[in-house]
Amino acid sequence: MAKKSSKAAKKSVKKAPAKKKAIKKPAKVSTGKGASPAEIGGKLVSLFNQGKADEWIKSAWDKKVRSIEGDGMQHVGPKAVLEKWAWWMSKTEVLGCTAEGPYVGATGFAVKYALHCKDRASGKETRETEVGVYTIKNGKIVQEEFMYAHS
Amino acid sequence: MAKKSSKAAKKSVKKAPAKKKAIKKPAKVSTGKGASPAEIGGKLVSLFNQGKADEWIKSAWDKKVRSIEGDGMQHVGPKAVLEKWAWWMSKTEVLGCTAEGPYVGATGFAVKYALHCKDRASGKETRETEVGVYTIKNGKIVQEEFMYAHS
Repeated sequence: MAKKSSKAAKKSVKKAPAKKKAIKKPAKVSTGKGASPAEIGGKLVSLFNQGKADEWIKSAWDKKVRSIEGDGMQHVGPKAVLEKWAWWMSKTEVLGCTAEGPYVGATGFAVKYALHCKDRASGKETRETEVGVYTIKNGKIVQEEFMYAHS
Repeated sequence: MAKKSSKAAKKSVKKAPAKKKAIKKPAKVSTGKGASPAEIGGKLVSLFNQGKADEWIKSAWDKKVRSIEGDGMQHVGPKAVLEKWAWWMSKTEVLGCTAEGPYVGATGFAVKYALHCKDRASGKETRETEVGVYTIKNGKIVQEEFMYAHS
């Protein structure tokens, strides 16, 4: 294959492909430094099922932890969250509870709880399941949200 | 009781309590207008268990829906989420799946899935459970995140 006419030579020059618009890929989600969702979730479930999670979870909460209830109420900071908890315990006797999980994700983890409770005022017993969704940042729980099965 | 000495009178004047710093209560969490998490979650679980959720969920996604996988990868927008799904289905044969829930919260809902899958390449079968956490804004799914049980 020898010389080509200048026309043919021009034709054979492949056009550089039009520069593709750079597609900005969304950044990978991460919980940052410190203990991972798997580690924190694993510890929570294990201690919960031994009835030992209450003290420990305080050390796992961030100082600005946000706790969201099913009705939309938020409590922010460990003090407020503990007050909500104390108020609930004053009304409720827990007859039994188990935790299942953790279900581990990129922003945190989820735990499925089964609760058997008695209302202290009426004596009425209930059994319910709920899912706690925990958000982790730098090894601390920055948010917990509780979601309820309506049965 | 008659006149008191001016000293006693002064003593008996109760001090006005120091003005308490107004505590700003955090606003209630809400998903805004449109269908509620209970409605959307109920429909998703019901249709999923009839094998009819695939088409419907497209109409429930927001235009900017964000889908977060366990490894931190995000896909944004219905097109990208469907591509992820198609890629997964090309590798995986679903032999059975059920949805449990919804677990309804203030920002959205959670669904527990049980899956029985076969890897198309190796033929290896797996059974796993996962939790999908869905965030709702104004009647649309703006985020879905999948969290996995490590068994």
